[in-house]
Amino acid sequence: MISSSRPTMYRARDLGVAPGDLAPGPLNAITDVPGVLVGQVTLIEGAAVRTGVTAVLPHGGNLFADKVAGAVHVGNGFGKTAGAIQVNELGCIETPIVLTNTLSVAAGIDGILDWTLAQPGNEEAVSINAIVGETNDSTLNDIRGRHVTAQHVVRAIREATGGPVAEGSVGAGTGTVAFGWKAGIGTSSRIVDGHTLGVLVQTNYGGSLRIDGVPIAPELVPEHDDRRTESGDGSCMIIVGTDAPVDTRTLDRIGARAIFAMARTGSSYSNGSGDIAIAFATGRDRTDRPIPAGPGTAAQQGSDPSPLFRATLDATEEAIYNSLFAATTITGSGGTTRRPIAVQSVRELLARNR
Amino acid sequence: MISSSRPTMYRARDLGVAPGDLAPGPLNAITDVPGVLVGQVTLIEGAAVRTGVTAVLPHGGNLFADKVAGAVHVGNGFGKTAGAIQVNELGCIETPIVLTNTLSVAAGIDGILDWTLAQPGNEEAVSINAIVGETNDSTLNDIRGRHVTAQHVVRAIREATGGPVAEGSVGAGTGTVAFGWKAGIGTSSRIVDGHTLGVLVQTNYGGSLRIDGVPIAPELVPEHDDRRTESGDGSCMIIVGTDAPVDTRTLDRIGARAIFAMARTGSSYSNGSGDIAIAFATGRDRTDRPIPAGPGTAAQQGSDPSPLFRATLDATEEAIYNSLFAATTITGSGGTTRRPIAVQSVRELLARNR
Amino acid sequence: MISSSRPTMYRARDLGVAPGDLAPGPLNAITDVPGVLVGQVTLIEGAAVRTGVTAVLPHGGNLFADKVAGAVHVGNGFGKTAGAIQVNELGCIETPIVLTNTLSVAAGIDGILDWTLAQPGNEEAVSINAIVGETNDSTLNDIRGRHVTAQHVVRAIREATGGPVAEGSVGAGTGTVAFGWKAGIGTSSRIVDGHTLGVLVQTNYGGSLRIDGVPIAPELVPEHDDRRTESGDGSCMIIVGTDAPVDTRTLDRIGARAIFAMARTGSSYSNGSGDIAIAFATGRDRTDRPIPAGPGTAAQQGSDPSPLFRATLDATEEAIYNSLFAATTITGSGGTTRRPIAVQSVRELLARNR
Amino acid sequence: MISSSRPTMYRARDLGVAPGDLAPGPLNAITDVPGVLVGQVTLIEGAAVRTGVTAVLPHGGNLFADKVAGAVHVGNGFGKTAGAIQVNELGCIETPIVLTNTLSVAAGIDGILDWTLAQPGNEEAVSINAIVGETNDSTLNDIRGRHVTAQHVVRAIREATGGPVAEGSVGAGTGTVAFGWKAGIGTSSRIVDGHTLGVLVQTNYGGSLRIDGVPIAPELVPEHDDRRTESGDGSCMIIVGTDAPVDTRTLDRIGARAIFAMARTGSSYSNGSGDIAIAFATGRDRTDRPIPAGPGTAAQQGSDPSPLFRATLDATEEAIYNSLFAATTITGSGGTTRRPIAVQSVRELLARNR
Repeated sequence: MISSSRPTMYRARDLGVAPGDLAPGPLNAITDVPGVLVGQVTLIEGAAVRTGVTAVLPHGGNLFADKVAGAVHVGNGFGKTAGAIQVNELGCIETPIVLTNTLSVAAGIDGILDWTLAQPGNEEAVSINAIVGETNDSTLNDIRGRHVTAQHVVRAIREATGGPVAEGSVGAGTGTVAFGWKAGIGTSSRIVDGHTLGVLVQTNYGGSLRIDGVPIAPELVPEHDDRRTESGDGSCMIIVGTDAPVDTRTLDRIGARAIFAMARTGSSYSNGSGDIAIAFATGRDRTDRPIPAGPGTAAQQGSDPSPLFRATLDATEEAIYNSLFAATTITGSGGTTRRPIAVQSVRELLARNR
Repeated sequence: MISSSRPTMYRARDLGVAPGDLAPGPLNAITDVPGVLVGQVTLIEGAAVRTGVTAVLPHGGNLFADKVAGAVHVGNGFGKTAGAIQVNELGCIETPIVLTNTLSVAAGIDGILDWTLAQPGNEEAVSINAIVGETNDSTLNDIRGRHVTAQHVVRAIREATGGPVAEGSVGAGTGTVAFGWKAGIGTSSRIVDGHTLGVLVQTNYGGSLRIDGVPIAPELVPEHDDRRTESGDGSCMIIVGTDAPVDTRTLDRIGARAIFAMARTGSSYSNGSGDIAIAFATGRDRTDRPIPAGPGTAAQQGSDPSPLFRATLDATEEAIYNSLFAATTITGSGGTTRRPIAVQSVRELLARNR
Repeated sequence: MISSSRPTMYRARDLGVAPGDLAPGPLNAITDVPGVLVGQVTLIEGAAVRTGVTAVLPHGGNLFADKVAGAVHVGNGFGKTAGAIQVNELGCIETPIVLTNTLSVAAGIDGILDWTLAQPGNEEAVSINAIVGETNDSTLNDIRGRHVTAQHVVRAIREATGGPVAEGSVGAGTGTVAFGWKAGIGTSSRIVDGHTLGVLVQTNYGGSLRIDGVPIAPELVPEHDDRRTESGDGSCMIIVGTDAPVDTRTLDRIGARAIFAMARTGSSYSNGSGDIAIAFATGRDRTDRPIPAGPGTAAQQGSDPSPLFRATLDATEEAIYNSLFAATTITGSGGTTRRPIAVQSVRELLARNR
Repeated sequence: MISSSRPTMYRARDLGVAPGDLAPGPLNAITDVPGVLVGQVTLIEGAAVRTGVTAVLPHGGNLFADKVAGAVHVGNGFGKTAGAIQVNELGCIETPIVLTNTLSVAAGIDGILDWTLAQPGNEEAVSINAIVGETNDSTLNDIRGRHVTAQHVVRAIREATGGPVAEGSVGAGTGTVAFGWKAGIGTSSRIVDGHTLGVLVQTNYGGSLRIDGVPIAPELVPEHDDRRTESGDGSCMIIVGTDAPVDTRTLDRIGARAIFAMARTGSSYSNGSGDIAIAFATGRDRTDRPIPAGPGTAAQQGSDPSPLFRATLDATEEAIYNSLFAATTITGSGGTTRRPIAVQSVRELLARNR
């Protein structure tokens, strides 16, 4: 087991890819949102264990006692994400958000419960809604072995910190693959009107990759071209956090934009897609003011969420690229190997097309 | 055309039927909610026109400029209610809420637009989301003739007032039938923690009627027993208003309880059901605080919406009874007659069963 | 650990309570639906373990290979049910449906995975959507101890059989409480046009109990009156199965009727409600014919689902009563005791009110 | 009033823009789907009337008697589309689908009712669910004048034909604007496994236009740059039809992909977005078979909808480009002018970037 803090090799901006015109936060990561913490446990064991856990904590305190506004937006529902029903009924998130592999959702729930039940102040808690997302890393990982344990999940939560976030083949992205290349965890952020919106993705989907609009095939084709394998492993989990004072309905709309952003990268949104966005807001000033109804209501423009929507689209697109550029080669179950996309070749391809 | 302000003959409380233990407001009507206005236009013309319009205004000002929090909860969706998509996206209602018959939804929209476009301050308005609900009064009304006009709708809106609300065979309830008896408009209210919650219903559905739990058949059977006619006309529209400081998610949950309350009266919720609740909150203090997650979170009990849920269940049940007891005999299209339930017989039946 | 097959003491029909006019199946149980199996594991250990597992199998074969049409209808979403997202995206159920307590959902998932991964024919399965429902039995059970294990779940699945279903304080109902009385598992069925529809409930909610419309309070009041405790434990899980040839949209509508039926029994549908219905259809002839639009389309009457809706309302109501009448006294965590309602007193009360 | 059959000047394929690798149908239009008809009425009157009606008929018979499977997928709900509730409850469409401007939805409903009530065979129809979509053309059109009448709608329906579909500034697209350029109606189609899927769009939204991934700004900037006007007029209506044997759940998923495709063109999906897809299937063999759950279930691959999803993504993207390239300059209300994008400049820009 490796608790990874490996420095990222490349990020999208190193190649000049910087979607939109909003500025990123200082780290260009979800941890730019004040208080947000990320912890990751990477499981690389033996020949076939290539999986892990990524935990995002909206804040470092007692989340069960001090809930945050939240929404789960299901873009495509071929997925096993736990906790969505209650989040959408009550509009709040009361635990860390854990990402892992498809068959380890139970370990995710149990780890969250272990941690939450043991936190001081929660001695009477008997009803806890654990949030666990997943994608299917069975191409590289012995997923049927269910090697993630509740202890791994607790460790990811406990070790969560602010600061730079490891990307690529780490945590819940250790074994994931996108567009036929090794992918994994990616993150990005944007500053909007003095607030920060941050995104973290676990990429594991297919289609015809485009970067900043430029088609990558046929110039660059992965060794093992799963682009057309439109089966059950084509998913992307997206976590969006912000300290902007938005209500839970707006968080759901933000989640929708996160899913839309995948189209910019060439997602085929195939039948097997479990594309799900989990959005939260840490702000205290969460009012539920009616939103202006367009032309004719000049008032209340301060609450127009459109800049947050753009930030979501742009940061999600960039986080996806980051998950690809930071990935490293993984050889896993059955001797299968998935390599990252060749960053230098992408750089040249982009240069030729702009 | 009759703008009805006919006094109600009987109400549920006259028979000792008073669901729940919360007190009603002074009028036991949706107009107990401060600022809420109701206007009705009753169309009884010739042999076959038996229909009308009921308009509920969350407040008497410029609703487009000063929107209220709102939600549309679709219990059963065999219905043509207009405006739900935008209400549920943005969480606000910006026009009067109009009820009419199934084929007059267009007249409802146009009447709302006529009124809203003409209001001072709306000179630049180009995008207005009209809310129109409906049930099918074709048993008594020449519905295919589409006799409701935009002018009727404007009149119902303009003449809307506070004070007592006419019930039974008036407004949008002029031609409606429930459980084989003449039904129509009913209303009721409850006081909850210093706030008021009011309900107005347009009843037009079937099943096996129970009043306060007592089965009405086989003792009382309507002359024309459509109880088993489980076809397309079995709908109930329910409008719920409150001045309690609730957010739009809670309004949706309140709307769900309004639909649940129909079960107490014996609704069969048949295939043809278009049972839809439209809920709004006029309060200014609409915060979106996360709701406590049950045992273990003693804090925030002030925001527990359960009392509002009970108020909704009880007031909806009572409003439905009121719609039946206040109804008067109507003979309409094709010479069809529907009579109200015999209140004295109900009183005796209830006495024998309690 | 007790694998219970205790004979039921009383059922609603013993008291003359038989909602609706459709006939029940021979067992008046969900197992009347051809092929449906039920397995239960009851955990009564030491002073404080009072919980268990109830598993419903749509058929006894390989569910992953031979999926059934399914829908999850969320009436009220304060609950942790797993698997809903994928069921509603794809319209199918591919595992047993497991009920347990709130903090044992992970054990439910893992038990389902253990069993499914090990079934012959599933050697390549890497993506399995486990369906687990729950209610909160913390009044009587040491829920924080998470005493249900994956092995218990596998045992409930393996031991599932047709035939009579144990009701009351068994399986997932071992520690549940409704209206202040000991409650638990209940079941009932109806015959509709030659097909069978069966219901199984796990009751754990509150309100003002009515039986066949007759208010039980103030004549009968539980020793520990939690009727007004409108907190997080007020949930009801409802499983509906049928061999009628219905599509998944109709299954969702059937699920809605299951939730509506709770109102007949006096549910307060309080803030803490996690009222969720899981519906499945085992039939092979699942066509997706458009449904007739009411008067004017006499054709296609064969596909009118209204009789199935009535069957759902009636069987759910009866299953809830059965869960109460079959329950036995349980003393559990903290020395808390919950007793069943006195059936003889109910009988007398009903007699006096009819 | 002009009933337009103007030949299209340019289409995307004339510029070498042909998303995806599936072949289009012979007309590359929604009318490639067997039986589908399109009728358009263009209203250009005086200085300020610049609007119209586009009607899509799933087949040319009696739609009310012979319904088609349907779904309405709300991508973003700042819109007034009528009829969605019932379509999603029952899974069928029973009228023509009409597009027009935001304040003319009532005229759309009334026109559909006029036509449907008058069709032979519908003499007893009393409950008809009209489907009307809209976008806001108030930049060029005197929308407050509500110049579309029910008669215009009936005319669009009556004159609907197969064959080539007029694109650009016609019908419901007469006054619409996208990315600051004149836009309007566009269409495209794809052949999938012997079936046809066709798309028709009414474009009226903003963002940062990309064509085949190439950013259009800053090289090409509209005279009146509303790209950043993220207010209430940013909507896109998308109609998708197919003769593939898909169920209504799959139609909803197809509708989701239509919304996703907008991201490829640079949509900002701003607060004012009413992005809604209406999908229908004309096929007779609509079975509701459970869909395979990914790896491990090799069977049933015939029902994998992924190719239809790709067809939807590609045909929607192309239909949007077509709506831009075919548009013609319109000067309308207040003397406002919107010009189409310069096709020759686009051609050069694309050449330089590929």
